Amino acid sequence: MQNDTQDDKIILDHGSGGKMAHRLTTDLLLPAFHNPALAMLDDGARLDLAGGRIAFSTDTYVVDPLFFPGGSIGDLAINGTVNDVAMCGAVPLYLSVGMVIEEGFPMADLKRVVVDMQGAAKTAGVQVVTGDTKVVPRGAADKLFINTAGIGVIHAGVNVSGANARPGDAVILSGSMADHGMTILTRRQGLTFETDLTSDSAPLNHMVADMLASGCEIHVLRDPTRGGVGTTLNEIAEKSRVGIRIHERRLPIKPAVAGVCELLGFDPLYVANEGKLLAFVPADQAERLLAVIRQSPYGRAACIIGEVIDDHPGRVFMKPVLAVSGSWICSPGSNCLEYVEESMQSKVARQPYGGPVGIAVVHGLSASAGSSPDRKDHGHHLSYHCGGRPVDVDRCASGEDRRTSESHQPQHVHLRSRQ
Amino acid sequence: MQNDTQDDKIILDHGSGGKMAHRLTTDLLLPAFHNPALAMLDDGARLDLAGGRIAFSTDTYVVDPLFFPGGSIGDLAINGTVNDVAMCGAVPLYLSVGMVIEEGFPMADLKRVVVDMQGAAKTAGVQVVTGDTKVVPRGAADKLFINTAGIGVIHAGVNVSGANARPGDAVILSGSMADHGMTILTRRQGLTFETDLTSDSAPLNHMVADMLASGCEIHVLRDPTRGGVGTTLNEIAEKSRVGIRIHERRLPIKPAVAGVCELLGFDPLYVANEGKLLAFVPADQAERLLAVIRQSPYGRAACIIGEVIDDHPGRVFMKPVLAVSGSWICSPGSNCLEYVEESMQSKVARQPYGGPVGIAVVHGLSASAGSSPDRKDHGHHLSYHCGGRPVDVDRCASGEDRRTSESHQPQHVHLRSRQ
Repeated sequence: MQNDTQDDKIILDHGSGGKMAHRLTTDLLLPAFHNPALAMLDDGARLDLAGGRIAFSTDTYVVDPLFFPGGSIGDLAINGTVNDVAMCGAVPLYLSVGMVIEEGFPMADLKRVVVDMQGAAKTAGVQVVTGDTKVVPRGAADKLFINTAGIGVIHAGVNVSGANARPGDAVILSGSMADHGMTILTRRQGLTFETDLTSDSAPLNHMVADMLASGCEIHVLRDPTRGGVGTTLNEIAEKSRVGIRIHERRLPIKPAVAGVCELLGFDPLYVANEGKLLAFVPADQAERLLAVIRQSPYGRAACIIGEVIDDHPGRVFMKPVLAVSGSWICSPGSNCLEYVEESMQSKVARQPYGGPVGIAVVHGLSASAGSSPDRKDHGHHLSYHCGGRPVDVDRCASGEDRRTSESHQPQHVHLRSRQ
Repeated sequence: MQNDTQDDKIILDHGSGGKMAHRLTTDLLLPAFHNPALAMLDDGARLDLAGGRIAFSTDTYVVDPLFFPGGSIGDLAINGTVNDVAMCGAVPLYLSVGMVIEEGFPMADLKRVVVDMQGAAKTAGVQVVTGDTKVVPRGAADKLFINTAGIGVIHAGVNVSGANARPGDAVILSGSMADHGMTILTRRQGLTFETDLTSDSAPLNHMVADMLASGCEIHVLRDPTRGGVGTTLNEIAEKSRVGIRIHERRLPIKPAVAGVCELLGFDPLYVANEGKLLAFVPADQAERLLAVIRQSPYGRAACIIGEVIDDHPGRVFMKPVLAVSGSWICSPGSNCLEYVEESMQSKVARQPYGGPVGIAVVHGLSASAGSSPDRKDHGHHLSYHCGGRPVDVDRCASGEDRRTSESHQPQHVHLRSRQ
């Protein structure tokens, strides 16, 4: 690109379909994503595909800030859709890119983003084969939005879906929770006290290919992005009509992430990840699949976090660290937390965020405050309580995970509630 | 959807991945686009495709206003991508939809848009199989942006591309120019003096299927959207390394559109269309293909507007209505208009918009003001001049088109320059 003033910033003409738009395409985008299908610059790409099943997915990336520790909107937009296609049990091959750029956006930033996209596409082994660029007037968009759609091929015999979880399945999480969401959040709020938060943005397609090739009978693959592990598990429980029980002490969280979550009042179960997956596999194959996942650079801290049960279809339970006689119910979006006695004789519900303080009867069961551990909202700070008294929560890998942790160094978490 | 206050407007929670987002999907989007692949609500859609070639295209729709005579952003987003896939010579089958919604956007408007998308998808015979919804804070987007990506199957033997134009091809335009662009523009500027402008938004895939089935050897299919007919022809000329000559008197324009273009200083050659296509076919097959196109409700006013020549590869010429010895050069984006004597001995160039008034020597040819017709910029009003004197321009269908016009009623244009 020339260095004249006109090219310092994106102007409306860059989206006009005219000469400036043409130059943006031929000078910046074509060289970055060079491949024969894209080079044709037709209305769409023509691609050769083996017959059979394909996966098709889309996502729009609206992240703020655009650049953050561990990545940018550029690699996020590639990795995110690569992962969504991979979660269908497919080998991602082709991507489309649709950008909405705000007038005045610095050309240098656009180039950085495109370079990141180029690098991510290369790492994932996918081709950007068609695209579109729109420029909107200043103020009509927040800097840059990127939509990507992706196509992949599903090989014969593969049948993974959020509807396929079965009682007896082990629930595997490929690594630590909430890294991406908390990195973005602290950057957005200008919090600088944490310097070691890094997004986990990563392409998971090669890991998935190895998992599918392992011969393990994988029932479900999902990446817990927006809404986090808690929301994704709820979706799976609902679609598969099964219950899912996870164990709080097994949930992998980096100490820095856990600390910031606690400080800001976020539950890491409901914070976004961008380079993690959940896999459901019959329990007797779980260790074998774990070994495969841990061979990937993005799966070193993988562990079994729970199991599928045949009770309570559509619900997710979390067995807390504290030795008590029940589980939390993890609801979608973390809007409601309920504590259920193992016997299901009593259930205590609270609205942790902004709701009225009090105990409610839910689902027709009689309420019981009793000595159930409780989670209270102090402004934006959540702390764990037991019988009305704040307690220390020492969250760490279970015995099972500790056994493997020595060689693979999974993230241990020691989360202490504030007194 | 419930009618409580919470549901009147889109809030950030609708994009959170939590309960509100889930409800938006299950209550509004799933019923609208109901099909088995979408109903799975997995990370992507799993689809069965016959082996062979596919077409893949994407576009983001950022139109303002969202609702306009003849359509809305909803049917535009479906038709636009359906058409882009069809222009690859493909049968469009599956679409993805990615929406970016501004916080506070009225739920009623979103429902209107979704209903329009539903109707357009049904008319085109395509399925929305995967999607994504993001909500951004108030002010971070202008109401609603919609990205769609589309997949279609290219049948054996079909080989159309913007790079395939050949000397001797006839250039067919399927109907009147600039309807969509001028409709949007007048609405955006609040101009109400024209009441009969209507967008031409339409799905062209069934027309294209009939064209491909006709046995005509179609070389190029393109829809002249952003940038208009002039820009699209330039892209084809450049990619095919051919010259293209069009005839001003044959260009179909509705009188109301021509009038508004003249009043506001727009050249209809460079204004967007959303339901038109350009087809290149060997001249001896052109009448046969025209007959097929005119059978479509969206192709009644189709006509031959020009031909491919083997001189001057990469350039588009327009033979003006006035009987003079040369042609306009139509440049991409209408940034520059030049007049070329037939002998190529002289070439006169002007910058019609905002450029310095004067005559320049271009491409090393000697300048000649002579009696060439000239186009002058009076603020935002273009008028046609000949030898320094304003002239009446009576633009109408050529004899060839007039012959067919009686039965098909193509749009005639009587454009008079202001004195």
